[in-house]
Amino acid sequence: MNDAENKSIALSLRTWKAQVERATGLLNTIGDAGLAAAIAPGRNTGIYLLGHLTAHHDAMLPLLGLGTKLYPELEAVFIKSPDGAGLVQPGLEALKQYWQEVNATLLEKMEALSAEQWFTRHSHVSEEDFVKEPHRNKLSILLSRTSHMAYHMGQLILLKN
Amino acid sequence: MNDAENKSIALSLRTWKAQVERATGLLNTIGDAGLAAAIAPGRNTGIYLLGHLTAHHDAMLPLLGLGTKLYPELEAVFIKSPDGAGLVQPGLEALKQYWQEVNATLLEKMEALSAEQWFTRHSHVSEEDFVKEPHRNKLSILLSRTSHMAYHMGQLILLKN
Repeated sequence: MNDAENKSIALSLRTWKAQVERATGLLNTIGDAGLAAAIAPGRNTGIYLLGHLTAHHDAMLPLLGLGTKLYPELEAVFIKSPDGAGLVQPGLEALKQYWQEVNATLLEKMEALSAEQWFTRHSHVSEEDFVKEPHRNKLSILLSRTSHMAYHMGQLILLKN
Repeated sequence: MNDAENKSIALSLRTWKAQVERATGLLNTIGDAGLAAAIAPGRNTGIYLLGHLTAHHDAMLPLLGLGTKLYPELEAVFIKSPDGAGLVQPGLEALKQYWQEVNATLLEKMEALSAEQWFTRHSHVSEEDFVKEPHRNKLSILLSRTSHMAYHMGQLILLKN
């Protein structure tokens, strides 16, 4: 792999990292009381969205072949179930710690991937399907999860006064 | 430029294109009455967000060196001014047409850029600064505008019943 290829991967990682930092700053600005509120009447709370983003970022570890999830229990509460479904949620302090820990672990492992590895399949696509759909590689996960984070940041900002 | 570099650009364009299509589908689902409403009490209306996204995508033409804006008048209303500032907005029918036209023109021109061109500077960065900050290239605009669109889609979805 040559320099220009690495430039493109480096740029995608740079965009991801900047967005995580912006999201963390936004969560801090909103504060604990703000995060307990719903983004709009009858919609998700900030706490749920924090758990949801953390659960999705944690799931990127196995998806990118980087290891197992740190907090597999988050999926049932923050991905498979909607907010207000009555499931016991971790406390906000714990969630904020998971957010930091998951993102730090994920970034470190992503930064160690070679450009070649970014173009290999992610774990939700079979070898057979990957031959037919070679765009379903690890880099596509990074791009789509960057957008996913931005999507929910557009909602979290509504909690900022 | 080799195959893997082109693959990375193609993937970024694919992600952009899929997101524009998803946004267009969402706007259609929300419908005219829905778009006239605010996403949350006291916040932007769907119409404003449609104008805002259209104005930003239109501005990508000069930013990426792909020509002049199709609708330069949108900037004053939908970027420089907040919603409800009292400026005359184009009608919704016109805005929906601009959205289609701007995105079609932009995509066609972006698809004609070579991988090499994507790594050249965008027009908001000087040649001098680009030497020091080579990540401020055209590809970085595509990635950040993809996230920008996702951010506002996370808000537009609140208009869907």
